[in-house]
Amino acid sequence: MRILVINPNTTASMTKVIGEAARAAASPGVEILAVNPTDGPPSIEGYYDEAFSIGEIGKAGEVDATVIACFDDTGLEAARCFSPSPVVGIGEAGFHMASLIAEKFGVVTTLSRSLAPIEHNLVKYGLASRCAGVRASDVPVLELEDPRSNARELILEQIQKSLSEDGAEAIVLGCAGMTRLAHELSETVGAPVLDGVACAVALAESAARLGLRTSKRNTYALPRAKRYSGAFGRFSPDGR
Amino acid sequence: MRILVINPNTTASMTKVIGEAARAAASPGVEILAVNPTDGPPSIEGYYDEAFSIGEIGKAGEVDATVIACFDDTGLEAARCFSPSPVVGIGEAGFHMASLIAEKFGVVTTLSRSLAPIEHNLVKYGLASRCAGVRASDVPVLELEDPRSNARELILEQIQKSLSEDGAEAIVLGCAGMTRLAHELSETVGAPVLDGVACAVALAESAARLGLRTSKRNTYALPRAKRYSGAFGRFSPDGR
Amino acid sequence: MRILVINPNTTASMTKVIGEAARAAASPGVEILAVNPTDGPPSIEGYYDEAFSIGEIGKAGEVDATVIACFDDTGLEAARCFSPSPVVGIGEAGFHMASLIAEKFGVVTTLSRSLAPIEHNLVKYGLASRCAGVRASDVPVLELEDPRSNARELILEQIQKSLSEDGAEAIVLGCAGMTRLAHELSETVGAPVLDGVACAVALAESAARLGLRTSKRNTYALPRAKRYSGAFGRFSPDGR
Amino acid sequence: MRILVINPNTTASMTKVIGEAARAAASPGVEILAVNPTDGPPSIEGYYDEAFSIGEIGKAGEVDATVIACFDDTGLEAARCFSPSPVVGIGEAGFHMASLIAEKFGVVTTLSRSLAPIEHNLVKYGLASRCAGVRASDVPVLELEDPRSNARELILEQIQKSLSEDGAEAIVLGCAGMTRLAHELSETVGAPVLDGVACAVALAESAARLGLRTSKRNTYALPRAKRYSGAFGRFSPDGR
Amino acid sequence: MRILVINPNTTASMTKVIGEAARAAASPGVEILAVNPTDGPPSIEGYYDEAFSIGEIGKAGEVDATVIACFDDTGLEAARCFSPSPVVGIGEAGFHMASLIAEKFGVVTTLSRSLAPIEHNLVKYGLASRCAGVRASDVPVLELEDPRSNARELILEQIQKSLSEDGAEAIVLGCAGMTRLAHELSETVGAPVLDGVACAVALAESAARLGLRTSKRNTYALPRAKRYSGAFGRFSPDGR
Amino acid sequence: MRILVINPNTTASMTKVIGEAARAAASPGVEILAVNPTDGPPSIEGYYDEAFSIGEIGKAGEVDATVIACFDDTGLEAARCFSPSPVVGIGEAGFHMASLIAEKFGVVTTLSRSLAPIEHNLVKYGLASRCAGVRASDVPVLELEDPRSNARELILEQIQKSLSEDGAEAIVLGCAGMTRLAHELSETVGAPVLDGVACAVALAESAARLGLRTSKRNTYALPRAKRYSGAFGRFSPDGR
Repeated sequence: MRILVINPNTTASMTKVIGEAARAAASPGVEILAVNPTDGPPSIEGYYDEAFSIGEIGKAGEVDATVIACFDDTGLEAARCFSPSPVVGIGEAGFHMASLIAEKFGVVTTLSRSLAPIEHNLVKYGLASRCAGVRASDVPVLELEDPRSNARELILEQIQKSLSEDGAEAIVLGCAGMTRLAHELSETVGAPVLDGVACAVALAESAARLGLRTSKRNTYALPRAKRYSGAFGRFSPDGR
Repeated sequence: MRILVINPNTTASMTKVIGEAARAAASPGVEILAVNPTDGPPSIEGYYDEAFSIGEIGKAGEVDATVIACFDDTGLEAARCFSPSPVVGIGEAGFHMASLIAEKFGVVTTLSRSLAPIEHNLVKYGLASRCAGVRASDVPVLELEDPRSNARELILEQIQKSLSEDGAEAIVLGCAGMTRLAHELSETVGAPVLDGVACAVALAESAARLGLRTSKRNTYALPRAKRYSGAFGRFSPDGR
Repeated sequence: MRILVINPNTTASMTKVIGEAARAAASPGVEILAVNPTDGPPSIEGYYDEAFSIGEIGKAGEVDATVIACFDDTGLEAARCFSPSPVVGIGEAGFHMASLIAEKFGVVTTLSRSLAPIEHNLVKYGLASRCAGVRASDVPVLELEDPRSNARELILEQIQKSLSEDGAEAIVLGCAGMTRLAHELSETVGAPVLDGVACAVALAESAARLGLRTSKRNTYALPRAKRYSGAFGRFSPDGR
Repeated sequence: MRILVINPNTTASMTKVIGEAARAAASPGVEILAVNPTDGPPSIEGYYDEAFSIGEIGKAGEVDATVIACFDDTGLEAARCFSPSPVVGIGEAGFHMASLIAEKFGVVTTLSRSLAPIEHNLVKYGLASRCAGVRASDVPVLELEDPRSNARELILEQIQKSLSEDGAEAIVLGCAGMTRLAHELSETVGAPVLDGVACAVALAESAARLGLRTSKRNTYALPRAKRYSGAFGRFSPDGR
Repeated sequence: MRILVINPNTTASMTKVIGEAARAAASPGVEILAVNPTDGPPSIEGYYDEAFSIGEIGKAGEVDATVIACFDDTGLEAARCFSPSPVVGIGEAGFHMASLIAEKFGVVTTLSRSLAPIEHNLVKYGLASRCAGVRASDVPVLELEDPRSNARELILEQIQKSLSEDGAEAIVLGCAGMTRLAHELSETVGAPVLDGVACAVALAESAARLGLRTSKRNTYALPRAKRYSGAFGRFSPDGR
Repeated sequence: MRILVINPNTTASMTKVIGEAARAAASPGVEILAVNPTDGPPSIEGYYDEAFSIGEIGKAGEVDATVIACFDDTGLEAARCFSPSPVVGIGEAGFHMASLIAEKFGVVTTLSRSLAPIEHNLVKYGLASRCAGVRASDVPVLELEDPRSNARELILEQIQKSLSEDGAEAIVLGCAGMTRLAHELSETVGAPVLDGVACAVALAESAARLGLRTSKRNTYALPRAKRYSGAFGRFSPDGR
């Protein structure tokens, strides 16, 4: 089985970390292809960056399942339209898996501008009522890996508030760049801390193994054949 | 890895079918233990039967993950309180997996008295907004396997209405006893038809493989040590 | 008129207190039958205990109305299926009556593990939007009557927070064991404090006097005739 | 015990019918005072009429409980502000009582212009999720008592659609003028049909018997002392 | 173009301020007619005052658009029934305009008794999910213009809490009497502060310029011809 | 005043029609700049096309207000992040204006794949409860202007169903390409039919005239300074 893992930002070092987390979560025999686009923002922080993070959606059709490895699930619906095989976002994956082990989960993300995109996704997926609250740690995405950023402490502080003040019973880490922190933070706080990348790989693999396919009725119907202009010509849905 | 699959009704032939479906969905090397209680109703049809279907919750603590194989997810929360390892209901599993491959899913169950329990579960899980509607086929649970019952045709009729009238893009079969029908019905209607047993086994296995544990904060805290009276003495939470 | 009041836990002293409160709330000429099961938990604290508190549902058919005297409304829907006459839970009764005298009510219950069951009931009944919040006093059920437990002070503290911080305009006491405290606490805080037992008796009596019967369409249809196995044989719905 | 029943329209013959229904629902020893204003519309059909149906709110302070006998619950909140004793609307009363005997209730009212006011009330009270739908019979209020109006048949037709198409399990009649039809229609359709006047009297009497008082915190605080100008001077809250 | 601006309370000095704000917001060539009733409360603070603030609805039919200049939108639906041209409330206008420039807006109003009417309006309009919270400044309406009332500071304090604690990104001032404060407070806090009067005039003018008319289907159908009794005779809808 | 109107697809003939509609709706003295991108899909039909319709967001900063002229409001949030002046989508504009003249509005759009994006937007904006339903006419965007497409009749048919079956009281046309049909269809059906382009121009102009600015707190904060790679370099937010 081959699973495509798309990091929709252009930062290759982040793609590498995500790829490693994906491989650690996959079953034996599952091949992980971790990619990122060459055009677009180096990190996705809020709605503006998101609009230019089109990812490598065009490759989704050639694998057994695809993971979108940005916590905003950027381009998830577009990729589902294009792909007959399952596509899973790491945001939704974290929410679904947390729902199975806790009545209420909290989310700890990077910047406050990412709160609204995540909250709207929770409503769109239907899982808002399961979320005890989304909190920002005020750590920019690209500083998560910087040892001088104090990232772990700032994230830990919000996790503890989520558990004690918001009533969260488990925590979903709200950025693909936090994937390395999940296990250790879970030990520290004594409650489940979930990494969306691992959850998404597990769900994508499960869906593929069960033979599930993206429904092509209505919402995720194959794009109508038409030619896109200019720089987006290579994404035109008329060649299939 | 060992996964306990609890059929909460007392009908052993149904446990056998469920066990086979669970084994077909599990990865190589996963052992499936399919059990049912000796006390209680032979089928669960509505709230009254459900109240007496306590299942074999007491065994949930000894395995890597547990599946509750009744579509009402009978006893799910109680089992989560008792068990440190993950517990997944086949109802919720079908809803979560369908959400990954379709914008809206429909549910087709047995009797109209089961509509309210399923609809309330959808609200409780947060996924009601993803459901295009729950429909009853008017086939009693124990007639599903009876070749004279015309079950497949009655279920197919409701599936087609769900797709064409309700706007469903995928279908979740609303009874553990329908597990054998999923694949063939999916071929017939040209849209995904999901069996909750397979979905739950995949999710339980995924959760266990990722090392996730049921949160013991608040809702699913271990039961307080106390002695139960009379016939329920063996379920007392004071011996652990 | 005869009203059956079922305490679904096995603690007879609590049944006695509940019966007294019920008699105090009933009109002249109404007979109160207060009962509890002999099998099951001595108190209901969270989902696990609840699963084994089947109560004395079988007696609901023989009276003019029935009250389920556990604040989680344990077994309420099952009793409604069985009974042609009205069945009222003390949780829902407190919520309905509070809605008539306040725009927003708060709930103060025992342990934090009971928050989720109560919150889900509020959603199920439709009255969640009327609730300013559910708070736990951290007093176990069986210590409510223990003079050393400091129960009254701990409950009072949460009532005051509910009124001042959550915007509650009235309080519903969230446990049948708190029934004796309602009147005095109402005087102390200068706002309505409701006891579910009294509310449920009044509603059950009202429904019976108006000649209302539990609807037998769909959700609360009489259980289908079938024989239950083993210890639950006496609850089988096939003898009626 | 004295219960004030306010018909907020000016039609005295309707007040008489309402008073009779109230007396039939009250316990022995309860005195019913049925009144209507002399200023305002002869019937309340939609938002415009409602704005001019101020009722006899000023009398609410002098009795043990008050019933607002218009299904739109016209002036309910205003009366609650003025009155220390409980005030119950016949619309809300019907919804609350129906919730105790059915999972889903339908409402059958007069004209389509009354649908929105009733639907908004259901949301305001929190009970919208319990309602299977509100239907208009297209019978104007003042023709309900006219034998030539075919009112019973038109109402019955909508009741039957509510039960069979909307999934209602009980019916609430959506106009005080329908009070005489409830019992007979219930017999005809074999499902509970509730009259709001009877339900409201039972709830008002229950609240008064339990010693409940309207909360004076926030929403229903006594009106601030001020003098109203002109024709409304007699309603000024400054004399108390 | 002529726009009628109805202040539904009887305080002429407040009508004058409102009229000035309306003129400042209107395009060149738009005539503003600011009126108030002679009967009723001098200010609208909660549900009781609201019931007696019928306004000058009868004049709504003779202009190009109407603004209801009370933040509770008192009589809005009644005026829409009566008027073929558009009618806009200042509460809804503030909510709609704030939604265009901020993801979440906060509301700061006068007294705590006004919280529930505003919150229910937000739900009725559908915009509750856009509101970060409604806060009371505890300044009575008629003291807003009193220099000794400290009104500006009390309002500013709640605005700052709304921005910092509730997550509001813009503020809607919750009383027509606050109209003079909007511009200066916006400068002070560095975030948009909206005055409902200006917003409503802009929306009413826009609707009229686009040729939009109040729909006469169902909810806002013209009142049925009938004669009102007594003091309300002049509002009878039978003369048209 | 200058208002930028962005057609996010690449079809210049559609931009021309939209520009004309915008000019017709604007007040005297307002200049309309109608533009479209050179890269991307010729029409936006569903999530896939939407992902590649980035529009001319970069120009939003230089005008008094901006209109996004695709009914899916493609790129609306991104443009708001970039722009200090107000940005209004034609979808949201239609919903807001319809809410002022009708209790419930219906939406009639092009293809069924556009239903989910529109329904999710309605939830995001908060106005879903005001919408009686979204219907597809099954006319592709680029055939709207084709006289052989029978577009008007197919749209009219869905409008009539929305009014008679769904209870809509006004209609919002769900595509910028339908702008020419609004006035005539309104005459035909005798109910308001709204064109989002005209509504958005009026709202954008109103917001600008009132001096409102997009809030820069949290959600729509200016993008953090960073350099985008490759083809998207010109959209980098680091040059400001």
